[in-house]
Order: sequence, then structure tokens, then C-alpha cells
Amino acid sequence: MKLYNYFRSSASFRVRIALELKGLPYDYKPVHLVKGEHKLPEFAAVSPTMLVPALVTDDGDVLGQSMAIIEYLDETHPEPALLPKDPVSRARVRSLAQLIACEIHPLNNLRVLKYLVRELKVSEETKNEWYRHWVREGLESFERELAQLPASTYCFGETPTLADCCLVPQIFNGRRVNTSFDGLPRTMAAFDACMALPAFQKAQPTSCPDNEA
Amino acid sequence: MKLYNYFRSSASFRVRIALELKGLPYDYKPVHLVKGEHKLPEFAAVSPTMLVPALVTDDGDVLGQSMAIIEYLDETHPEPALLPKDPVSRARVRSLAQLIACEIHPLNNLRVLKYLVRELKVSEETKNEWYRHWVREGLESFERELAQLPASTYCFGETPTLADCCLVPQIFNGRRVNTSFDGLPRTMAAFDACMALPAFQKAQPTSCPDNEA
Repeated sequence: MKLYNYFRSSASFRVRIALELKGLPYDYKPVHLVKGEHKLPEFAAVSPTMLVPALVTDDGDVLGQSMAIIEYLDETHPEPALLPKDPVSRARVRSLAQLIACEIHPLNNLRVLKYLVRELKVSEETKNEWYRHWVREGLESFERELAQLPASTYCFGETPTLADCCLVPQIFNGRRVNTSFDGLPRTMAAFDACMALPAFQKAQPTSCPDNEA
Repeated sequence: MKLYNYFRSSASFRVRIALELKGLPYDYKPVHLVKGEHKLPEFAAVSPTMLVPALVTDDGDVLGQSMAIIEYLDETHPEPALLPKDPVSRARVRSLAQLIACEIHPLNNLRVLKYLVRELKVSEETKNEWYRHWVREGLESFERELAQLPASTYCFGETPTLADCCLVPQIFNGRRVNTSFDGLPRTMAAFDACMALPAFQKAQPTSCPDNEA
């Protein structure tokens, strides 16, 4: 498999975690978002949406959208499972993942921040305040959701799931703009548990070949 | 089942479509987002994230996030299926759904528009331009993705899927700010095919008991 991605892209990081958790080797294909490489014809020929991550399967199918890719990996390589077995538990894990992927991350991805600066002419500080606002508000929702669930080591249960694949990159993102994570005990305990695992360490931006940190 | 939702909420509309496609009866519980009813203690007691839609199952489980709810419905009431059977096709449908639910809709939901006006002090026209920009850019990606797929009546294949549940409300949303849908032939053909079905008609905002149109 090949993964077109970018070290700092949060959605790319989610897929790298899933690949590492499942022990699946892949070719790392860097696409430099800040330099606009995702808009070049070479990448558009691979992925018509011009978004990263894009996974190219061994059969040559090109798949987009991080949660869709992770579910594909889970269906084709079931162990270790990234979703529980029963429908209610699966819904809980997907809901936690989507609380991040639909409610927080879209508001702080690169093209949105660029629009704020270029079109709305906001200051660097106002941009960072926007970023922190949505991360903080979203993680507070996430924490309230976790607080309803039985005690667990990870976001849901005793093994990492799709929810953890989404949470960890979001915490990395929030740190870049000094978001406060105070008062989020379940969320941060899950984050810490994940970061103690080699899979999350190997997938993190500073472990990537295109890392610039 | 009970569905806490709002007639104009795009994410609520997705779940209503899925319920109608599967012929599942439900109690319609209106939550007036513009009046802030989702922030009242009564609703917080039902749904800790204070987001709509929230589905209460017959067993009393409260499930959030529209795509997670629809997958739950599909797993517990498999016919008619809202996802194909093979993993690559499932990934394609989920990816199309997420192109809308993660790339477009989060940027034009109510709380984001409020932030633009209240915190960033943008004008009504600048707000609408923001709205149209993300809808248009996102649907152009969506169209390029559809253009890679075999000809089909709906977004993917000959029956409605999770992708159609997400597309139709996004088109309704875009219409509210006069987005141009020119040059999106596959996308708009899928929309038209959906709207010819009673399930989509019954789920639309003007069919809702709390409709104010």
C-alpha cells in the first residue's frame, strides 16, 4: 500500500496510527501541503479530490477520507479490531471519532486558516483564538461524552479504536496553538495511554520522513 | 425510537432520510437551535454533547453524530442497505459522505456562522460568501470524485446510500445562500434522483412538524 500524506496533517496522522496499530507496512508518499503540492497535476492524477490522506491499495484502488480509509483497513485486516463488535458500541466509537473529525478538525485545517487570513484579513492572534476556541469547545463535548461511558484505558474500552486514532492528532493540533487541556481528565488520560504505545509514537509527525520540526 | 432534531439542521435531515428509507417509525422531538434549546438543561440531560441529531433507541441508548447513527441503523435494520457489501465500495460511499460531512458542512453550521458575525464582526454578505465558498469548493471535489466512478443513478450505484443521505441536505443548505450548482452534472443528477423518492420528500425540512418555512 501507498499512503499519500503530510507529516503535520491531522487526518494523515489518523491513518498512519491505524496502519501502525495493524502492523501494515506502507510506502510513505509525502505531499507538502504548505508548498501546495496537493494542487499539482501529479497529485490530482492520483487523487481527484486533491486532499490528503489518500491510500492506494495493493490492487491500485485510491481511497480518500481518513475515517473511510480506517474502516476499510479494519474490514480488510480485522486484527487488532479498531471498532467493537456490537452496534451500540460501534456507534459510540464512531460518534467520538466524528465529534473530532466533523466538529473540530474541519475548522482548523490549513485551507480554512488561510481563508481567515487572506479573505477575512484576521490577525494572527485572532486566527489562533479561532483555532483554540473550536478545539476547546469540541474537546469539552468530547469529555462530556466520555464521562457517560464506563471507565476505560482508551477512549472506549481497553484497546485503541478509531476514536483514539482521531483524538491523538487533535491534541497534537491543539498544542500547536497552546490550547488549554485543563478539566479534560478522561480525554487526556486516553491520550496519554495512546502515546505510551509504539504505534502512536511511530505515527507521530516527528517520526515522519518529511518532518520539519 | 426518538429523534431529537431540528427541521433545518442538515445533520438531522440526513438521519431523517435514513429512517424514511428504512421505513422506521420514530417520535419527532424538535429542538429549536436558533432559540438555543440545545443548550437547555432538558436537552443536555438527554445528550451530553448538546448537539442534534440525537437518536434514542428503543433500549434507551442515546446516540449522536449523524453518520454514526446511520451506520447503526444500517447494522440493526439491514434492509434496504445504505452501504454496499464489498470493502472498496463501502470506502467509496463513506468517503463521499465524509467529503460533505467533514469538508463542507462543518464550515456552514449555525454556531460557526454565529462566530463569524459575533466574534469576527463580518458582514452578512461576507458570511454568505464564506458559506458559498466552502459549499462550492467542496461540491467541486465531490463531483470530481463521482466522475471517477461508473455511471450511476444515485451517488454510488442504483440505490440510495449514506452518501445520498449527506448530499441532499447539503444541496438544500447551499440553496439557502444561492450557491451556483453549475458544472456539477453527476452531483445534481444524484440529487434529482433522490428527490424523486418519497423518503427524501418526507424527510425534507418543509415536511417536518417544526418547519417554519
